[in-house]
Amino acid sequence: MAYERDNIRSLSPYVPGEQPVDAKVVKLNTNENPYPPVPGVLEAIAAVGPDGLRRYPSPTADGFRRIAAETHDMEPGQVIATNGGDELLRLAFTVFCDPNGDQGAGGVGETWPTYSLYDVLARIHDTPIVRMPLEDDWAIPQSFASQLNEAGCRLAIVVSPHAPSGRYESADRLRQIATEFNGVLLIDEAYVDFARLDALELIRGNGALDNVLLLRTLSKGYSLAGLRFGYGLGHRNLIEILDKARDSYNTDALSQAAAAAALKGREQARMNCEKVVQERRRVGDELARLGWWVWPSDTNFILTKPPESGQNAKETYESLKREGIFVRYFDQDRLRDKLRITIGSPEQNDTLLRVLTARV
Amino acid sequence: MAYERDNIRSLSPYVPGEQPVDAKVVKLNTNENPYPPVPGVLEAIAAVGPDGLRRYPSPTADGFRRIAAETHDMEPGQVIATNGGDELLRLAFTVFCDPNGDQGAGGVGETWPTYSLYDVLARIHDTPIVRMPLEDDWAIPQSFASQLNEAGCRLAIVVSPHAPSGRYESADRLRQIATEFNGVLLIDEAYVDFARLDALELIRGNGALDNVLLLRTLSKGYSLAGLRFGYGLGHRNLIEILDKARDSYNTDALSQAAAAAALKGREQARMNCEKVVQERRRVGDELARLGWWVWPSDTNFILTKPPESGQNAKETYESLKREGIFVRYFDQDRLRDKLRITIGSPEQNDTLLRVLTARV
Repeated sequence: MAYERDNIRSLSPYVPGEQPVDAKVVKLNTNENPYPPVPGVLEAIAAVGPDGLRRYPSPTADGFRRIAAETHDMEPGQVIATNGGDELLRLAFTVFCDPNGDQGAGGVGETWPTYSLYDVLARIHDTPIVRMPLEDDWAIPQSFASQLNEAGCRLAIVVSPHAPSGRYESADRLRQIATEFNGVLLIDEAYVDFARLDALELIRGNGALDNVLLLRTLSKGYSLAGLRFGYGLGHRNLIEILDKARDSYNTDALSQAAAAAALKGREQARMNCEKVVQERRRVGDELARLGWWVWPSDTNFILTKPPESGQNAKETYESLKREGIFVRYFDQDRLRDKLRITIGSPEQNDTLLRVLTARV
Repeated sequence: MAYERDNIRSLSPYVPGEQPVDAKVVKLNTNENPYPPVPGVLEAIAAVGPDGLRRYPSPTADGFRRIAAETHDMEPGQVIATNGGDELLRLAFTVFCDPNGDQGAGGVGETWPTYSLYDVLARIHDTPIVRMPLEDDWAIPQSFASQLNEAGCRLAIVVSPHAPSGRYESADRLRQIATEFNGVLLIDEAYVDFARLDALELIRGNGALDNVLLLRTLSKGYSLAGLRFGYGLGHRNLIEILDKARDSYNTDALSQAAAAAALKGREQARMNCEKVVQERRRVGDELARLGWWVWPSDTNFILTKPPESGQNAKETYESLKREGIFVRYFDQDRLRDKLRITIGSPEQNDTLLRVLTARV
C-alpha cells in the first residue's frame, strides 16, 4: 500500500554534488570555499559547552539576528535565521505558494536554467512552476515579471549572482522586476560575497520594497558549508510571515554561536573571498588561453565550455574524476556542453590547469 | 497587500516554553535534562575542525545512521536523521497529508490533549485535524483507529509516553492501533528514555509493521536540546518517502558528530536518565504528601494538580515564577487546573519542594 501523496511518489529528489570521503580529492564540484572559517568561529563553538547543549537554544536566534542586523544596517526584526539557505527557500514556498498541483496559478516563477533545488521544493509543496528561459548571455528576459504576473505566480526566485552561469544582475534590474511583479521576489544571494555589489538597497532605506527577500548563506563566503546556516533579510512583514512557518527551534546553539562569530569576523572572511576572486580571474584567463569559452563570473565558480577540438564536457568531467579532480556536470539543456568549476586554493587550481594543459 | 496564504495569515504560531536568560532560574518548564551530555559529545564537536566546517556534511548523515542502526539492531536504511524531532514531524505532514484545507479527508488524527506543535504543523500544511479526547486516565480510546479511518486520516500521531500527562501506552495497545489504522502511525517517543519500555518491537523482527514510524530525539534523554537532533525509525519504504522531502543537507557536521558520540555513550546517558527517574518518584511522593494529585509518569516530568485548599494552578505557576522557579502552565481544557513540572536536579527539586512545603 502506498502511504505517500502522489506528488511525493512521483518526485525525483534533489541530487547534491558528490561528497567524496577521500580527502585527497581536488574537490571543485560543490562551490565550497578553499579557506578555513575565521578562528573566532571555532572559539565560539568551543565556548558553547555542556550547558548550552543541554538547554534549548534561542528559538529565534536572537544573538545572531542582532549581529546580522548591525552588519547590514537593518533591524533584528528584518532578519530570520534558517537551517541553511535551503530552509529559507522551503519556507518561502510554504507561506507564499498554493499547493494546488502542477496546473493553475499561485505558484513560483523562475529563470531557466537556475539552481535545481527550487524545482524540487516546488514539487514537494505541489505548487505550479513557471519557467522563463534566460537570454543567450544568461540575462533575465525583459518580460520576466509581466509573464509571471500573467501566470498568477505568488513567488519568484532569482539567484543573483546567477548559478550556474556566474552572471551578475544589477540591483536596478532586480528593482524593475520587483516593482512590476505582484508577488514576492526572493533574491538568492548565496554567492554575493564574491560579487561586485549586492541588492541590499532594495530592502533598506528610502525606496525599500515590501516584496523583496534576500537570501544569504554562510556556506560560501564564510567557509561554513558544514554548519548549515543561512538567513533571510527583508521587510518586517515578510520576516514575520516566514517566522510563523519555521520549525520552532530551527537553528541550534552551536550554529547560532558560530554564525554570530563568522559575521563578527567578516573583514577577515572578505579577504579570503578576495583571494578567491583573484584566483577566479587567473583560472578564467588560463582556461581561455587553452581555448575554453569562459563566461564572466561574480561567484566562486566559473561556467566554462571546453574547446570543440578535444573531449566534450561530459568526457572531460569523467576523465578529470578518474584523476581525482571533481568538477560539476549538469546533464540538461544548455548546460550539457559545459562544466561548472569551483575556484579552489591556488594549489588545487594549479593541479586542474596542469592536467588540462597537458592535454592540449 | 497580503502576500501570504490564508492559512498562514490566520495561523497562531507555536509558543515554546519560556527560555529565561538568567542562569539562576530553576528551570522546570521545558523538560530539559538536568545532567550534562556525555563527555564524548564535546570531544566529537571539538574534533570537527575547520575542514569539517568548510565542507558540506554528509547529506544523509551516514555516520550517525550507522550508529543509530547498530544501537537499535536495525539497518541504516531504516533510519532518517532530522533537525530535531520537529523536522521529522513536519516531514510526516508533508509527505502523508493532503493540503486541502480544514475540511474533508487526508489529514491527521491525534489524541486530545497532546503535544501542541502537531496542530501548528497541521495548520501550516493546511491539512484537516481530527481530535479524539483521551479517557479520564489519559488512555487512548478504544475507537481511536476506527474513527480516524472513518474520517480518512492519512497520518496519526501519538506521543508515548504521553505529553503532558506522562502516561505510558503499551506496545501491544499501539500495535492494535497501527494494525487497525489505514494510514501511517507516528509514535513520538521523545520521552522514551525515561520509560519502562519502548515500541521498537512494532518495527523490528517478525511482526514488524510497514506503517509505523518512531520518533526519537536527543533533546531529553541525551541532554542535547541545544543541538536540535532527532531521528526517525521505521520500515525502509517509509524512510525513503520521508527522505525525499527533507532539506538537502538537513543536519550539520557538528550535530552529526555530536549525535553519533551521544549514542555511543548511551550507557552513561542511561545512568543520568535513571537518576531523573528516581527523582521523579521522590518529587511525586513529596507532592502527594502535600496534597497534590500526581498522575503516574514515564517521562522526565509530572503532571500534577494542586490541592483545592490553596492557590489554583495558574496562581501557583505565577507565584513560583516570581520566586525564580519556572514550571509549565497550559491554559486549555482539562489542563488549566494542572501544572507540568520537569524533573530537575536534586537541588532544583529540593528548591521547588521547599517553596511548596512552606505554603502548607
